[in-house]
Amino acid sequence: MQTILQSKTKTVKIDPNGPFTIIGEKINPTGRKKLAAALQEGKFDYVRDLAAKQIAGGADMLDINVGVPGLDDVAVLPQVVKMVGEEFDIPICIDTSNPQALEAALKVAPGRVLVNSVNGEESSLSRILPLVKEYNAAVIGLVMDENGIPNDPEVRCAIAEKILERAARLGIPGDDVVIDPLVLTVGADSNAAAITLKTIELVRKNFGVNINLGASNVSFGLPDRDTLNVAFLGLAIHAGASCAITDPTKYTALIKGCDLLMGRDAYAAKYIKYYRTHPVEKV
Amino acid sequence: MQTILQSKTKTVKIDPNGPFTIIGEKINPTGRKKLAAALQEGKFDYVRDLAAKQIAGGADMLDINVGVPGLDDVAVLPQVVKMVGEEFDIPICIDTSNPQALEAALKVAPGRVLVNSVNGEESSLSRILPLVKEYNAAVIGLVMDENGIPNDPEVRCAIAEKILERAARLGIPGDDVVIDPLVLTVGADSNAAAITLKTIELVRKNFGVNINLGASNVSFGLPDRDTLNVAFLGLAIHAGASCAITDPTKYTALIKGCDLLMGRDAYAAKYIKYYRTHPVEKV
Repeated sequence: MQTILQSKTKTVKIDPNGPFTIIGEKINPTGRKKLAAALQEGKFDYVRDLAAKQIAGGADMLDINVGVPGLDDVAVLPQVVKMVGEEFDIPICIDTSNPQALEAALKVAPGRVLVNSVNGEESSLSRILPLVKEYNAAVIGLVMDENGIPNDPEVRCAIAEKILERAARLGIPGDDVVIDPLVLTVGADSNAAAITLKTIELVRKNFGVNINLGASNVSFGLPDRDTLNVAFLGLAIHAGASCAITDPTKYTALIKGCDLLMGRDAYAAKYIKYYRTHPVEKV
Repeated sequence: MQTILQSKTKTVKIDPNGPFTIIGEKINPTGRKKLAAALQEGKFDYVRDLAAKQIAGGADMLDINVGVPGLDDVAVLPQVVKMVGEEFDIPICIDTSNPQALEAALKVAPGRVLVNSVNGEESSLSRILPLVKEYNAAVIGLVMDENGIPNDPEVRCAIAEKILERAARLGIPGDDVVIDPLVLTVGADSNAAAITLKTIELVRKNFGVNINLGASNVSFGLPDRDTLNVAFLGLAIHAGASCAITDPTKYTALIKGCDLLMGRDAYAAKYIKYYRTHPVEKV
């Protein structure tokens, strides 16, 4: 199954057997005071800067989240989506839990976007999926519901199935639903990542759909987060993940390396091209 | 299945479901002129230095190879094995293709060693396995034979089966045979690592035995080898590898990270302990 996204002129294909798709995570004010302030002041130069840096680093898509307490996201989200969509030729992932803000952004987004996200809660399924259908988008489905985030990979997989079924009923095919198996930090529960890896394997085996990672949560609260994030990307890519919302300025080389080692980069062409344009500093 | 190795007083368990076992690769003169010269001169201080640094870096075992052209390995290998075994309390992996040197080293090695290696060739099976049995050692089995290193993971797996069967006939149980699926560089064949990963999965599924990686070959001839080596460790650990002959001074943090993410490090205790004793430099 392939998930096809588009910008003004470019197409990105998320493919379980293809090279990994990198969705830049940095246009998100959570924990980024400078971005939060810029969004509140309606000054988008810093957003432009983050977009440009992530694209230079190797992002295939950009996630856009404007969730600042008190900010009118119904007004601001479409402004930022429109600006990034017009000024940067890269497909967008619209990141909001507010259906009004989502619809406003969907109306102005160029190309074909990925919606981040729906989950297994009835209120989410019934409000997000119709918008995904109406605007011919694709969607990330988080494996959580009214009961929270289950610890059992089988139960997470059952929520994935429910999301896929509800989407199918509206005419949204499995190709257009990217399942996010969710990962909590191993700092709080040392089994957290193992549960996610098992969920990835199950979802991949049972449904064959694309799988997204929010790859930086796993290390929250622990020292040397980069090492854990890198390790998790390798483990999760082998388990079957096909895209991640992550930091392209840090992890693109590792991801290109995984593509090569998984047999998805003939003649190491992309790996070497990335190296030549992003040489590693000698330590 | 568990492979149990011993030094003078310590026991190391290689376990498919346990934390990953790191076998330090550096006491090997291939490509290390300073070590080659030291071995030829019979001056072992540099060997001591390499042993100490690898143990400080996180090695669980040390590989010992004295293969220098013209060097009398039947004389030198046991000297080095005896010195390391007596001065450092860490299990040893005796690395030689010469049965005479192997036997001489087995006679003086303390504890229970890992022999590196037997392969599927008749001459290797018939000469190495009886020594492994006689000296109650464990052995690494390389999946190659008279026809070379096959490209087909199923054929590599069949060689693993042959090695396991021949060992069993001599009374060497599967616990004491660590299969090495072999990895060639992706610089020469961009499918090389994918073949190895598939072999790991097959061997693990079919036989349940421990699996070793010679983890640094994969990146030979390519730029930014560290990134590829790190990526490969993550992918291979998820595929089922349980130990590697690698550089503990570079890759231990990543491996401890993988252990934690695979759910093999309760309360992140080992990860945090390693970090505290080996803090990461801020870049």
